[in-house]
Amino acid sequence: MAEIETFPNPHPKRDYLIRHVAPEYSSVCPRTGQPDFGTIEIEYVADRLCLELKSLKLYLQTYRNEGVFYEDVVNRILDDLVAACKPRWLKVTGKFNPRGGIHSTVTAEHTKRRRRA
Amino acid sequence: MAEIETFPNPHPKRDYLIRHVAPEYSSVCPRTGQPDFGTIEIEYVADRLCLELKSLKLYLQTYRNEGVFYEDVVNRILDDLVAACKPRWLKVTGKFNPRGGIHSTVTAEHTKRRRRA
Amino acid sequence: MAEIETFPNPHPKRDYLIRHVAPEYSSVCPRTGQPDFGTIEIEYVADRLCLELKSLKLYLQTYRNEGVFYEDVVNRILDDLVAACKPRWLKVTGKFNPRGGIHSTVTAEHTKRRRRA
Amino acid sequence: MAEIETFPNPHPKRDYLIRHVAPEYSSVCPRTGQPDFGTIEIEYVADRLCLELKSLKLYLQTYRNEGVFYEDVVNRILDDLVAACKPRWLKVTGKFNPRGGIHSTVTAEHTKRRRRA
Amino acid sequence: MAEIETFPNPHPKRDYLIRHVAPEYSSVCPRTGQPDFGTIEIEYVADRLCLELKSLKLYLQTYRNEGVFYEDVVNRILDDLVAACKPRWLKVTGKFNPRGGIHSTVTAEHTKRRRRA
Amino acid sequence: MAEIETFPNPHPKRDYLIRHVAPEYSSVCPRTGQPDFGTIEIEYVADRLCLELKSLKLYLQTYRNEGVFYEDVVNRILDDLVAACKPRWLKVTGKFNPRGGIHSTVTAEHTKRRRRA
Amino acid sequence: MAEIETFPNPHPKRDYLIRHVAPEYSSVCPRTGQPDFGTIEIEYVADRLCLELKSLKLYLQTYRNEGVFYEDVVNRILDDLVAACKPRWLKVTGKFNPRGGIHSTVTAEHTKRRRRA
Amino acid sequence: MAEIETFPNPHPKRDYLIRHVAPEYSSVCPRTGQPDFGTIEIEYVADRLCLELKSLKLYLQTYRNEGVFYEDVVNRILDDLVAACKPRWLKVTGKFNPRGGIHSTVTAEHTKRRRRA
Amino acid sequence: MAEIETFPNPHPKRDYLIRHVAPEYSSVCPRTGQPDFGTIEIEYVADRLCLELKSLKLYLQTYRNEGVFYEDVVNRILDDLVAACKPRWLKVTGKFNPRGGIHSTVTAEHTKRRRRA
Amino acid sequence: MAEIETFPNPHPKRDYLIRHVAPEYSSVCPRTGQPDFGTIEIEYVADRLCLELKSLKLYLQTYRNEGVFYEDVVNRILDDLVAACKPRWLKVTGKFNPRGGIHSTVTAEHTKRRRRA
Repeated sequence: MAEIETFPNPHPKRDYLIRHVAPEYSSVCPRTGQPDFGTIEIEYVADRLCLELKSLKLYLQTYRNEGVFYEDVVNRILDDLVAACKPRWLKVTGKFNPRGGIHSTVTAEHTKRRRRA
Repeated sequence: MAEIETFPNPHPKRDYLIRHVAPEYSSVCPRTGQPDFGTIEIEYVADRLCLELKSLKLYLQTYRNEGVFYEDVVNRILDDLVAACKPRWLKVTGKFNPRGGIHSTVTAEHTKRRRRA
Repeated sequence: MAEIETFPNPHPKRDYLIRHVAPEYSSVCPRTGQPDFGTIEIEYVADRLCLELKSLKLYLQTYRNEGVFYEDVVNRILDDLVAACKPRWLKVTGKFNPRGGIHSTVTAEHTKRRRRA
Repeated sequence: MAEIETFPNPHPKRDYLIRHVAPEYSSVCPRTGQPDFGTIEIEYVADRLCLELKSLKLYLQTYRNEGVFYEDVVNRILDDLVAACKPRWLKVTGKFNPRGGIHSTVTAEHTKRRRRA
Repeated sequence: MAEIETFPNPHPKRDYLIRHVAPEYSSVCPRTGQPDFGTIEIEYVADRLCLELKSLKLYLQTYRNEGVFYEDVVNRILDDLVAACKPRWLKVTGKFNPRGGIHSTVTAEHTKRRRRA
Repeated sequence: MAEIETFPNPHPKRDYLIRHVAPEYSSVCPRTGQPDFGTIEIEYVADRLCLELKSLKLYLQTYRNEGVFYEDVVNRILDDLVAACKPRWLKVTGKFNPRGGIHSTVTAEHTKRRRRA
Repeated sequence: MAEIETFPNPHPKRDYLIRHVAPEYSSVCPRTGQPDFGTIEIEYVADRLCLELKSLKLYLQTYRNEGVFYEDVVNRILDDLVAACKPRWLKVTGKFNPRGGIHSTVTAEHTKRRRRA
Repeated sequence: MAEIETFPNPHPKRDYLIRHVAPEYSSVCPRTGQPDFGTIEIEYVADRLCLELKSLKLYLQTYRNEGVFYEDVVNRILDDLVAACKPRWLKVTGKFNPRGGIHSTVTAEHTKRRRRA
Repeated sequence: MAEIETFPNPHPKRDYLIRHVAPEYSSVCPRTGQPDFGTIEIEYVADRLCLELKSLKLYLQTYRNEGVFYEDVVNRILDDLVAACKPRWLKVTGKFNPRGGIHSTVTAEHTKRRRRA
Repeated sequence: MAEIETFPNPHPKRDYLIRHVAPEYSSVCPRTGQPDFGTIEIEYVADRLCLELKSLKLYLQTYRNEGVFYEDVVNRILDDLVAACKPRWLKVTGKFNPRGGIHSTVTAEHTKRRRRA
């Protein structure tokens, strides 16, 4: 798996909000083998580390040929990002293209301690 | 009636939000016999079970030739989904196409116990 | 005046939200005699009675040739609907087309007792 | 019927295009007696006379309580405006709100002689 | 099959354009048995007969439980409408909801003789 | 200065919200002498008096040839409207067209006592 | 009246299209004395002279306190701009804010000789 | 490579237009190895064969892990579809997500003989 | 560095909200040397000083040829504006154009003491 | 100046359309020294050479600190691109952000010989 790189938070004394939106997410449906498409939104309040943008892109690309369910992948991205940058707060939202005429969205979040921006 | 299938929640320790939007809902007006059209939105926090997407689609299709009032069908879908997956929280919204120049929306929700995402 | 008909709330044990949007409202300006146009939005939590949609449409049409001020008509619709269905909560919003280059919106609500969906 | 007033075209030597859009048209369905709503668009190249805007508004209001079919009213407005201002070219489009789930548009035009802007 | 009713064109001397848009079309996929959804647009220049709106709605509803391909149904609607009202020109467009992530549109037209509005 | 006229609140026992949006505001930049353009939004809960719409329009027009700063004019309109109708609550928002590539918005409010709709 | 300044066309051998859109036009209604608002669009193919942008802005501002009809002002702007820069082709479109619920647009153009971009 | 399947044109005597829009196209940049994303639009007038929708979807997926330039892939899809269904006319448009801040679109078409719908 | 000028708050007794949106922000990526683009939004409640608009524009332009990271520049703008006008509350949001297909937004705020409008 | 690189047209026998849209153009106003912003659109039919995307981006960036008028820069880009790839047809459109409240667009094109896609 691609490593998620980080860099030191340039303003660690302040709680502030960082948001990255990646509309080019794609994985594979574990049932049908067909490609799935969606947008992954990441919002977080950094503690001592910030997510490096290019490695984040490469990390999301590791799902491109993997079979994952919507409910699972959003939680796994959350766990991986939390492990990588140990944020004060982090939320992942996956908005997926319709399948069988139904649009799905999954949102999960993690809080270290309640000091949100 | 089509059975609503479920699968085990892959991340049951975390409260997280799942949302399915089905814009291809259709039923029949019990008064005029004319087809009604609308969008059904389902949001929930799973407990031990998640709603399986394909069976959810087939379940919503069972209303296609049934005569139901807006206020009734939203509550019945809520009851059926709650019975199927016993969620921590679940909300159903039906947004219906205009009839007689009036657009109608009905929203109902169920809470097991207050541990919402 | 057209009578506002009701039917028994099919799910009276649950607080749930019903919303009707009527974009084809028209009345007459009491000052100039010119027709006014707007959208009337009705949101409510039913108690034992629901508003019947067709009679609601006919009720709103009774204002078509009547001279009423914006501030007055929204409150009168609120009073009439509350009298007809005795809801737990009901809100009326009138959004009116611009007159003299100014768009106006009036919103009024009534609460029986605080048990909102 | 309200008279459609005109004023002398201030630039009669030039073919130029004038367009008036009236989104507050309303009449009555001759079958059901229910109010219809729509937008009337008028485009024309004046010859010696221009349509006076206020009398145009009053003219369109004369349909408010009249029962007319869509196909008929657009042609009648066309005939009346052509008679009033004798334009080089004039087109009327009626875009009507959906009835029975169907939106209708009717477009008719008149040309005096081919000297369009 | 529901008969498509007509009424005499109130302005037969003039070529003018009539357009009906029906966004509540639904049929069944002949392969999967799943419901299809779409919008049917009809544009025509009447000769001696106009399409009656309510019977048009009922005609389109006859496809609700029928299995038809997109390419076929648009041509069949075109043939049926041409047979019913013998127009100077008529065009049918079907815009269908995505299936397998692909949106499809089919457009077919019929001309009696070149006298279009 | 044009006097802001009022009329008796027709439903003074109820707290309800009135909103007027005037997108045709224009004044003059006190620095450059160039015209400024913007939209003034007024929201209020009337006590015993409502703002009369036509006099409100004329009042806003008094700024047309006056040199005022954004921060100042919103507060002055707030003060003038509060003085005229003594509302339970009133908010003024000025949204101004970009100058030097920067869009500005100023929002100020006044509360008599906390009984908001 | 403000003079419309010009500068030499930097590429006079090529027919190319220049378009300026001024959404901050305002004048006064000659009948009611009320301010009118609109957008003036200017498209042209320069010959030897181009319109200088700042003087164009100042020229349009000269109408701010003048009473002019829509049909007249568009033709007058056309005449003034043609006189100032003697273009190969020039078109003026005025799109005016609704008055009495009716939106108006007036379009006039001038061609020197048929060598349009 | 996935075979593009066809089925007999159900209305071969009439020239009519078929359009398929596939917003879930993805391939790989031949230079950087990074995934590219885009929408492929296909419009055609069938002769004796129509493109089967599911095999079209599978055909487009064959580019998912292939390195292709925009200019090349649109022409290759055009050639493959023309070979498969021998249409009277066919156009392919590829609209690609921005790379380096630049959005690219490529459009190519093929005509058998000039009998377009 | 350009100095951020201020002027006395014309209504210092009232907490009110001022918002400036600058969509023409540009800087340079410290890694690639490529220009970055974005929108800077500033919201604040002034104490005794307001930010002068022209100097604010010039201040934001000082970043045009500077290499800065998103997370850093938003906090630096916040610090500089707080130092310049000592507001009761101030928030800076940077919305940056996509890089590598990912859109980023950073939001930071400063509060002197909790007396927000 | 950055060199505009090209690569061999992979399908030179077919006339097909290539379009690149660069919304991150910026230069400097030659009068005020202030940065200008805009979008450059390039459409062309290649002959034997295609424009390489990355060098196109770098070429457009060469204007970042240069003072150029709108009318001039669009024609200069056109000349440079024509010189670089000798296309069958090429069009450049510059859409610039408003200055003094006026939006400007300039469009110029070059044709080698009339064999357009």
